[in-house]
Amino acid sequence: MKTRAAVAFEAKKPLEIVELDLEGPKAGEVLVEIMATGICHTDAYTLDGLDSEGKFPSVLGHEGAGIIREVGAGVTSVVPDDHVIPLYTPECRQCKSCLSGKTNLCTAIRATQGKGLMPDGTSRMSYKGEAIYHYMGCSTFSNFIILPEIAVAKIRTDAPFEKSCYIGCGVTTGVGAVTNTAKVEPGANVIVFGLGGIGLNVIQGARMVGADKIIGVDLNPDKEEWGRKFGMTHFVNPKDVSGDIVEHLVALTDGGADYTFDCTGNTDVMRTALEACHRGWGESIIIGVAEAGKEIATRPFQLVTGRVWKGTAFGGARGRTDVPKIVDWYVNGKIEIDPMITHTLTLEEINKGFDLMHAGESIRSVVVF
Amino acid sequence: MKTRAAVAFEAKKPLEIVELDLEGPKAGEVLVEIMATGICHTDAYTLDGLDSEGKFPSVLGHEGAGIIREVGAGVTSVVPDDHVIPLYTPECRQCKSCLSGKTNLCTAIRATQGKGLMPDGTSRMSYKGEAIYHYMGCSTFSNFIILPEIAVAKIRTDAPFEKSCYIGCGVTTGVGAVTNTAKVEPGANVIVFGLGGIGLNVIQGARMVGADKIIGVDLNPDKEEWGRKFGMTHFVNPKDVSGDIVEHLVALTDGGADYTFDCTGNTDVMRTALEACHRGWGESIIIGVAEAGKEIATRPFQLVTGRVWKGTAFGGARGRTDVPKIVDWYVNGKIEIDPMITHTLTLEEINKGFDLMHAGESIRSVVVF
Repeated sequence: MKTRAAVAFEAKKPLEIVELDLEGPKAGEVLVEIMATGICHTDAYTLDGLDSEGKFPSVLGHEGAGIIREVGAGVTSVVPDDHVIPLYTPECRQCKSCLSGKTNLCTAIRATQGKGLMPDGTSRMSYKGEAIYHYMGCSTFSNFIILPEIAVAKIRTDAPFEKSCYIGCGVTTGVGAVTNTAKVEPGANVIVFGLGGIGLNVIQGARMVGADKIIGVDLNPDKEEWGRKFGMTHFVNPKDVSGDIVEHLVALTDGGADYTFDCTGNTDVMRTALEACHRGWGESIIIGVAEAGKEIATRPFQLVTGRVWKGTAFGGARGRTDVPKIVDWYVNGKIEIDPMITHTLTLEEINKGFDLMHAGESIRSVVVF
Repeated sequence: MKTRAAVAFEAKKPLEIVELDLEGPKAGEVLVEIMATGICHTDAYTLDGLDSEGKFPSVLGHEGAGIIREVGAGVTSVVPDDHVIPLYTPECRQCKSCLSGKTNLCTAIRATQGKGLMPDGTSRMSYKGEAIYHYMGCSTFSNFIILPEIAVAKIRTDAPFEKSCYIGCGVTTGVGAVTNTAKVEPGANVIVFGLGGIGLNVIQGARMVGADKIIGVDLNPDKEEWGRKFGMTHFVNPKDVSGDIVEHLVALTDGGADYTFDCTGNTDVMRTALEACHRGWGESIIIGVAEAGKEIATRPFQLVTGRVWKGTAFGGARGRTDVPKIVDWYVNGKIEIDPMITHTLTLEEINKGFDLMHAGESIRSVVVF
């Protein structure tokens, strides 16, 4: 069949809207019609050529929502017309990682996914006879895509695609970091560094679970209004703090935060986030992706006196199990998404979404097919 | 009253055995006759002048066992003739830290303890009219000492002092890191870096809780025999590994260890310990005390993909609650101490204990009064 798609033919070039050839689903695979897709920093990171493992030509996009249109042999967990969110972190429920019960980082198809291929080692997409690489196991910038059955989360049918697609990455990453990785408890004090699309979701996750102080830290004063919309109780702009930022935050939290979250990707901020944790039990969660080659550092005394340094990917969420719950939380009003979707675009306008992101003018742009 | 004590009059000088004047217990304090005391690396660290907060003249020693001889006004939890282990990490059960239920790092008397003083800001010990500083809230190199009530753990009376004193630091630090901080579960794979007095206790802690592979890592081949005595199943000498030590350990543990423990104090080893953890869930616990100014570092990717970096002090043990249990474990044969006490000395021989430690000839030397 044919599918319209925005193709990244090479790094640092705008995407081109073309018609691709798409093979149907093989055994264990499904055909999904993507109805909407968000544009995430990670797509830009790869398009800008910063991802050393980035493959071209490829179809980027990993934050989508759509409808199952066809299933391959042996597929049992979804049927045509099911609404689904593609999962860049699949959930096979069979591998050592899934069975550990301790992580969401399923390893069933990691090797081929990292190479831009389906689990059988080939691509389903081609353009003028040339194979086009898949991306993060998703490629949601194509109207139709093929996914492994283990890489789709079945969700309720009353969630609007142009909002629920954000749960495919940003919402789950931020909210899940609170609920799955940190397991923030009611009454806890929380500090969130970086109030972009992830940080705001950490904030609303902390609000949902009943955190007490929810402190947002950002260099951009415009972010204060955004933070307060989603439950932030205190805003700190490091530019306005005369002394040491760690001391300031420790004083504000009566000895340090119970949980801190880095949503900046800046390794110096990651250190600040750790050291602003409470002695004895404070936990710092790294969410942001650092520049290649950058390292985090601290004195070991920080850990010996009880602080814990962790990280999270996809919010610690097991995709097929947890993503449908987060869709429920959205539909039931426990979390908000609508105000974060600042721009809705057509596929033809997709490059504008990248421009808005780079200009800092959007929280999230969504392409509706 | 008078007490015999080994006094550190100044840094880098041998201890001197003298008779000190000792004031009796004030309200909330107890007089303890120390029956035996271990000599720990931390004592040597301070005596060598490496501890920037070290006070002189002082009575070192923090790993003792003894008998309550007198109690001050208001003391309710112990009575004369009770056997006790002094606690350099007290347990007041009233402060924010104790009440958190999340840490053993009681802060009730931290400020004065750090200054070498009792909670009222004075010393109970003097020599020729000059005040002598307390050390780590213990000073077990004195035959009689004054301690706050919250800094003694009451233990059973059938545990021999010259063995149970080791529970005052080394045993609890190693075993507790396994049971309290890491909470190692049966079947887990564990790597222990550094097979000294702490590392061997980590090993036997891991054996006690039913760990599967218990891998010891040390540059000294003589340590293999010691490790195997206490439950080590595999020995790795980095000198004998041709390639990368992390890769070697990851291969040996089928993807990485569930828990690793640094008992070396070397920040490079701490990094190796973290990176030898299993992707998705491996936790690395820092026990060793690093040189002043040294920092730990790694790529944040190590944490984002699920490894956790932690530390522990006094094995995460709440002294009054957990130390008596560890004494039970020893008396009931769940853990061993006797073979680790390689040398028993008189107080007059105490400097020999430091020499044996520096020469690497002892696991633990104990002074019996």
